[in-house]
Amino acid sequence: MLCAGEVGQKIDKKTYNERVPDLRTELLLAQNQLHVSADFSVIAVVAGSDAAGKGQTVNRLHQWMDTRFLQTHAFDQPSDEESERPLAWRYWRVLPAKGLISIFLNSWYSEVIRAMLAGEMSEADFARALVHLNTFEQKLTDDGTLLLKYWFHIPKKVQKKRLKNYASDPDQAWRVTEQDWWNLRHYDRLRPICERLLKDTNSSQAPWLVIDGTDRRYRELTVSEHLLQSLRSRMQSAPTGTVPSPVPVHAAEAAPDGPTVLSELDLDQQISRSRYRRHLVKWQARLNELSRRAQKKRVATVLVFEGADAAGKGGAIRRVTTALDARRYEVIPIAAPNDEERARHYLWRFWRRLPRAGDWTVFDRSWYGRVLVERVEQFATEPQWRRAYQEIRDFEELLCEHGIVLVKFWLHIDPDEQAKRFAEREQVPYKQYKITEEDYRNRSKWPQYEAAVQDMIQQTCLPHAPWTLVEANDKYFARIKVLRTICEQLHDAIPGKK
Amino acid sequence: MLCAGEVGQKIDKKTYNERVPDLRTELLLAQNQLHVSADFSVIAVVAGSDAAGKGQTVNRLHQWMDTRFLQTHAFDQPSDEESERPLAWRYWRVLPAKGLISIFLNSWYSEVIRAMLAGEMSEADFARALVHLNTFEQKLTDDGTLLLKYWFHIPKKVQKKRLKNYASDPDQAWRVTEQDWWNLRHYDRLRPICERLLKDTNSSQAPWLVIDGTDRRYRELTVSEHLLQSLRSRMQSAPTGTVPSPVPVHAAEAAPDGPTVLSELDLDQQISRSRYRRHLVKWQARLNELSRRAQKKRVATVLVFEGADAAGKGGAIRRVTTALDARRYEVIPIAAPNDEERARHYLWRFWRRLPRAGDWTVFDRSWYGRVLVERVEQFATEPQWRRAYQEIRDFEELLCEHGIVLVKFWLHIDPDEQAKRFAEREQVPYKQYKITEEDYRNRSKWPQYEAAVQDMIQQTCLPHAPWTLVEANDKYFARIKVLRTICEQLHDAIPGKK
Repeated sequence: MLCAGEVGQKIDKKTYNERVPDLRTELLLAQNQLHVSADFSVIAVVAGSDAAGKGQTVNRLHQWMDTRFLQTHAFDQPSDEESERPLAWRYWRVLPAKGLISIFLNSWYSEVIRAMLAGEMSEADFARALVHLNTFEQKLTDDGTLLLKYWFHIPKKVQKKRLKNYASDPDQAWRVTEQDWWNLRHYDRLRPICERLLKDTNSSQAPWLVIDGTDRRYRELTVSEHLLQSLRSRMQSAPTGTVPSPVPVHAAEAAPDGPTVLSELDLDQQISRSRYRRHLVKWQARLNELSRRAQKKRVATVLVFEGADAAGKGGAIRRVTTALDARRYEVIPIAAPNDEERARHYLWRFWRRLPRAGDWTVFDRSWYGRVLVERVEQFATEPQWRRAYQEIRDFEELLCEHGIVLVKFWLHIDPDEQAKRFAEREQVPYKQYKITEEDYRNRSKWPQYEAAVQDMIQQTCLPHAPWTLVEANDKYFARIKVLRTICEQLHDAIPGKK
Repeated sequence: MLCAGEVGQKIDKKTYNERVPDLRTELLLAQNQLHVSADFSVIAVVAGSDAAGKGQTVNRLHQWMDTRFLQTHAFDQPSDEESERPLAWRYWRVLPAKGLISIFLNSWYSEVIRAMLAGEMSEADFARALVHLNTFEQKLTDDGTLLLKYWFHIPKKVQKKRLKNYASDPDQAWRVTEQDWWNLRHYDRLRPICERLLKDTNSSQAPWLVIDGTDRRYRELTVSEHLLQSLRSRMQSAPTGTVPSPVPVHAAEAAPDGPTVLSELDLDQQISRSRYRRHLVKWQARLNELSRRAQKKRVATVLVFEGADAAGKGGAIRRVTTALDARRYEVIPIAAPNDEERARHYLWRFWRRLPRAGDWTVFDRSWYGRVLVERVEQFATEPQWRRAYQEIRDFEELLCEHGIVLVKFWLHIDPDEQAKRFAEREQVPYKQYKITEEDYRNRSKWPQYEAAVQDMIQQTCLPHAPWTLVEANDKYFARIKVLRTICEQLHDAIPGKK
């Protein structure tokens, strides 16, 4: 696999000097066209051998291009804010907006290789990690990101010589780290790992380009020309930024008639006011105790509340947060995205809100908007909302793998109950603002919403992230069920009981 | 001063229960009105004695109010991303948008008190720190933020009893820290410090309300009623959100005629191409070396480039970044703010871009837009741009105190040179996009811009953050001067020479 990078390809000085002036102009023009149209974002991953000229090539790109619209991110040791979230958080937080180019140096590949080489990872973990990486990259390319991947390779003897040269030059010695020497000693073990990695992450949406890093002029021209051609062909093929993407095949959606998980719910369940009072106190005390224990164990919690308008999400959330320390939680109401959010993958706005260790984020509506309101109101195209099921499954899996407790609620009421509540809201001064024309408009689409909810539950109810369906015609019943469910999941998730 | 908090004020259960339902409704209504109008943001600082009920009161507010538009920030140990920036960064990064309320628990006051009590701060440092806090708060209130400050106080014996009670109750013991016991032992030393702090930060824009923390009902009602009344009176008095603010008196601005710092510049200075080449290589090598040393010493650098259109900012920036490691810098072009930025103080967008230790941020235009384009084009009101001089001085002082190297350039050309460059740009394909109608419009306001630049330089050229005026009619001369200046300032700033 790597042989392509070992034939010692070279470009002579004359060819290089003839080509560079035009290339720079063309790069600037393409970059400007990208920035003005803001149709898609570009991520260039630069990975590969130590001392293969990755950093130097990236620096050259910075010289040739407009650095106002180009940014390089190198991922060293994670900061404490990063290490408290799933590994992918540090990549999500710096995703470029549409119209911009980001170079990710080493990025998500270096950590896998390091762990594998150090023997911290089994073969099975490695295979799974590669699947995760493919999934992540697929998400980006599905969203329209142009993802380019460059693998820099140099033969062992070139690497050795180069490291020695660097080390003996006082001005270059800083380039060489302990890790580099260690990697050199393990070159022969490293090679099959890299070959496997290249093979298994060489997707059609984001294939690797293996670059021979031996010759400076060759690697600079090859990367720049490829970047330029990729930009151009993408801008020609998809002038409006909408990329046709393959529709993944999912299980058939729930038929609109016949019994469903929703129609089977017993919405008549209720509890008396006095019983509610007793249980409320009991479960809030329990939740408070568990939340303090979770904080101590640095376990973060994410709550998702979905439900029709007036299903009682706000009231349920208030009964939960009452039991929490105000310093430790944040309630995020999800409405229309702002312009920073609109310029990125729709999951970006949720990634950026993930809690630090021990803290809570409560989403009042969530990423499920993609397969609910955005589907029904056609804000998202069918391929977009269809692939969202898988994107959401992957996203939630990452949260759970990191040890975040994820609790998801669908608060269910029937149309009559909703009508009653709308009428009530219009009577109460501080609730009037909650009711808008849009609510009535949404109401007229009840069957479409119900079908969307069915599909959502079927597609995203997973062992590590189950849905809890809450019979919410009776608010008291609903609130107690919500509190109890959170307590139970939290209890199971916190390591080492009190 | 604190006596007001010690008379043991109480509210009986009946009064409390009668008042609370209406109070909650009124709070929700006011909060909703604030959110819908999005005229201003609200920050409530809650500080004071340990065990005085601060956290409990904040939790109560969260129960009574709409937590979707209310967020509490408690500032514990700074994260490493926070400690690598000036202390104020952690507050700036979480400033609420207009329409939202944030509660800052302890916030900027706790650190000053702790340092003073621990003997880490001299009287003079303390006095200076309080001036800084006033300045910071003034910035917020000038920008329209409603800043409320609550100081919770309890007598020593109540504090002692409460801490003991907490400590002996397994469910409350977590509330009591070592620091609390230490503070109790030093109560008598702490008191005069707090009194001094309250006195010296009791500004007219943001006065302290001292709350007796002994009685739970009293403190809850007092804080909530005060918050409600403050919200209401503010919304009545300034329905459009424009707050008349006192215009600080500045030194007279530069007269438009007569010799000025700009007219005295010798724009004929130039260097030959061959000399330029030699110096470019020399200074870039020097800069590269210094930048590596700065990274090692974890010294961050912020560069500001201002100048008329076509003054050569982009070209100069490119000659600087060429010498830097692409992983270590970011070029931020400043154009119109996005909607998250527009909803906050105009300095917020610059605060959020400050580099981590050892890194570089290059601003292609900057916060000086406030006193240049925003002044001339009347995007900012006269009080706004006039007070910006002081705001900018304060901001830059914080950067420099933190050890950030701040280098500011004004690239100066004359109108003839600009006309020549505009014409050139129209000839070069990859420069055409740089030239817009707006450029020609700006050009017609040359005298107004020149007056604004004069004032800017006069008002913001400070010992720790001087302006470097660059004679830029000759690009070669300008670039070398820029490189040399950065090297010199960096050399002086890096501790312990090589």
